[in-house]
Amino acid sequence: MFEEMMRNVVEKKPLVHCITNTVTMNDCANAILAVKGSPIMADDEGEVEDITSICQGLVLNIGTLNQRTITSMIKAGKKANALGHPVILDPVGAGASSLRNECIKQILDEVQISVIRGNMSEMKAVAFQSATTRGVDADENDVIDEKNIDDMIAFAKDLSQKTGAIISISGAMDIITNGHEAYIIKNGCPEMSLITGTGCMLSAITGAYVAANPQNPLLATACATAMMGYSGELALKRVLKEELGTGSLRVYLMDYLYIMDFNHLQEGLKIEKR
Amino acid sequence: MFEEMMRNVVEKKPLVHCITNTVTMNDCANAILAVKGSPIMADDEGEVEDITSICQGLVLNIGTLNQRTITSMIKAGKKANALGHPVILDPVGAGASSLRNECIKQILDEVQISVIRGNMSEMKAVAFQSATTRGVDADENDVIDEKNIDDMIAFAKDLSQKTGAIISISGAMDIITNGHEAYIIKNGCPEMSLITGTGCMLSAITGAYVAANPQNPLLATACATAMMGYSGELALKRVLKEELGTGSLRVYLMDYLYIMDFNHLQEGLKIEKR
Amino acid sequence: MFEEMMRNVVEKKPLVHCITNTVTMNDCANAILAVKGSPIMADDEGEVEDITSICQGLVLNIGTLNQRTITSMIKAGKKANALGHPVILDPVGAGASSLRNECIKQILDEVQISVIRGNMSEMKAVAFQSATTRGVDADENDVIDEKNIDDMIAFAKDLSQKTGAIISISGAMDIITNGHEAYIIKNGCPEMSLITGTGCMLSAITGAYVAANPQNPLLATACATAMMGYSGELALKRVLKEELGTGSLRVYLMDYLYIMDFNHLQEGLKIEKR
Repeated sequence: MFEEMMRNVVEKKPLVHCITNTVTMNDCANAILAVKGSPIMADDEGEVEDITSICQGLVLNIGTLNQRTITSMIKAGKKANALGHPVILDPVGAGASSLRNECIKQILDEVQISVIRGNMSEMKAVAFQSATTRGVDADENDVIDEKNIDDMIAFAKDLSQKTGAIISISGAMDIITNGHEAYIIKNGCPEMSLITGTGCMLSAITGAYVAANPQNPLLATACATAMMGYSGELALKRVLKEELGTGSLRVYLMDYLYIMDFNHLQEGLKIEKR
Repeated sequence: MFEEMMRNVVEKKPLVHCITNTVTMNDCANAILAVKGSPIMADDEGEVEDITSICQGLVLNIGTLNQRTITSMIKAGKKANALGHPVILDPVGAGASSLRNECIKQILDEVQISVIRGNMSEMKAVAFQSATTRGVDADENDVIDEKNIDDMIAFAKDLSQKTGAIISISGAMDIITNGHEAYIIKNGCPEMSLITGTGCMLSAITGAYVAANPQNPLLATACATAMMGYSGELALKRVLKEELGTGSLRVYLMDYLYIMDFNHLQEGLKIEKR
Repeated sequence: MFEEMMRNVVEKKPLVHCITNTVTMNDCANAILAVKGSPIMADDEGEVEDITSICQGLVLNIGTLNQRTITSMIKAGKKANALGHPVILDPVGAGASSLRNECIKQILDEVQISVIRGNMSEMKAVAFQSATTRGVDADENDVIDEKNIDDMIAFAKDLSQKTGAIISISGAMDIITNGHEAYIIKNGCPEMSLITGTGCMLSAITGAYVAANPQNPLLATACATAMMGYSGELALKRVLKEELGTGSLRVYLMDYLYIMDFNHLQEGLKIEKR
């Protein structure tokens, strides 16, 4: 099933408009290019509608939100909705400030989101408008494991039904659901959280995958998630062999995202349907 | 001829003021350092005149333009003109929005530009105020090849005469012209377009080269272009040998920009005058 | 002594709020993660107080200051003071523009700073409100060497007593003083100044170290400085062995920051008390 998803991205080379944070912007652009999409970053109110109109998907990431870019996100989101383009929301640091909570509420009120992708702490903040977010990382009470996985899936399905969006929760196990079906992906490694931007990059490539596969956004999201996770595993393997650290992990992660094709992915894929 | 250009940059260590996009800012700063210049990024209206005054060149890049930085670009550009400093313009994504087209028009109306560097789609947008820009990448109809090269050179010479700027068009073949003489450079590789910022980095180091070589901006621009292209070729060679991808291509490109001296460049230089 | 400092960072995993420049933001976030802290970048006036409240330390870096972020820095600084959190100031490019000088004056007037970290040219600008700053790099007249080291220490001690802040001056020899005691650190290598952001990264990890070691900010600052310097030495060694350049130096620097533990540091530490 993922073979077609991956071929569609390579063939369509979707143009993805990102209004995203300044910390990991470069990584997000390079990640979209690595999976063979084409990124464009533009956040001025005066051009976001023009830019989104020439694209096939929109990614909104609130990592370094400010008054200026919040306005641009809403404007771009509405335009993308009008054009039928998928909109991905990455609620970075949700729960860490009132501004972030209000911004997320406003986006969800005014824009129909196709996929919300974040860690469990961020997702709880989105769902309950309150959280014990430890900054931009998941709180240790929000770790997804075999014991709580069924509760977590139920939470994700519920949030999906409430928002009308596919929910993609990243963690030791990733949960992707459209409210009815759920996929669990066990790729990835804990070291990925020791480099900034792995979550943002996943949201960015999810944008490319969903834009190129409008017929099946659930599987497209799952495919992007598996690619990121397995690329991280391969990158870590090389880092350990060469006795390097997180600087090289970041570089090799991009390398493997670029190298990853269906044959590679199939060798390492750890996915199950629940 | 390039030997002197390269020596001048190393000896003068030109300070280059960049008002540039937030996506590739870090790459631009590191690229200027790699060729032995010295970068300073500053975009607040309240300081751009002070900053440009202590520099020897100015680079304006509209990749993530906004109302605030457009004002700063005009202000810095006028000050640089008054001081006789070269001003490089990178019209990133020209044609992709009205805001970008208007911004470019305003800059060209109010600031005398020394070098305009972009891909063929961007250059057409600059010339005709309309384009089929595919975001920030060149449209596939705008590929420069052996068949259309004479037409492309004629276009570039014409644009140079209209704007009074050296025109530097990047593609499979790069065209650099001052309206009378033209150089064609065949260094570089297609994989360079799979990492974000290679164009921005070229504009940035062009700033360092032109600032250190005011007596010959045409050759200085050609030299920077050849260095970037050949560094990309060497980086790709190493990436393929080590079975890596675009993450490492980006790192090695910077490595070879740093390593590149006249002897290295001479070995790989593919330039002709037309 | 450094053993306890390093253990405290790993065990407490301090959350560090950075209001920092857009050029090296990603490097700063990754550097904090590499030393096992946790970064959050947030600069909107509407959320900086919330964000700083959930953190244990604040880093203010004026590298790409603008009117919007100056207001945010003051607001966050005051909140951090009220909460008793350490505040680190990196006066990037002090002396290069009136705006930077005024911003630094305003910060020092309104916020109690715990550590000021910069190069000698920046520190002179902070002390005398005037300087011969060569952009963001130290002026060649401001090199710290064996001949002038005693004068430089006296200058640093004096500045520390005037500001009430620990002074951390980076150069061929680093000086760290609380106005009474001074440490000289001879780790590091000149090539570190050929990549952008090594100073910013040091300020960022100093934030993590001081936040986790409030009982001894002087030693915490010295420890962070030694780690950065020795990581740079190890990175350069590997770069030279593999015949690479500044692209890889930047990557390996991050690798060694991540790998660096007390045993590693002890092998290479070059510190003396004066």
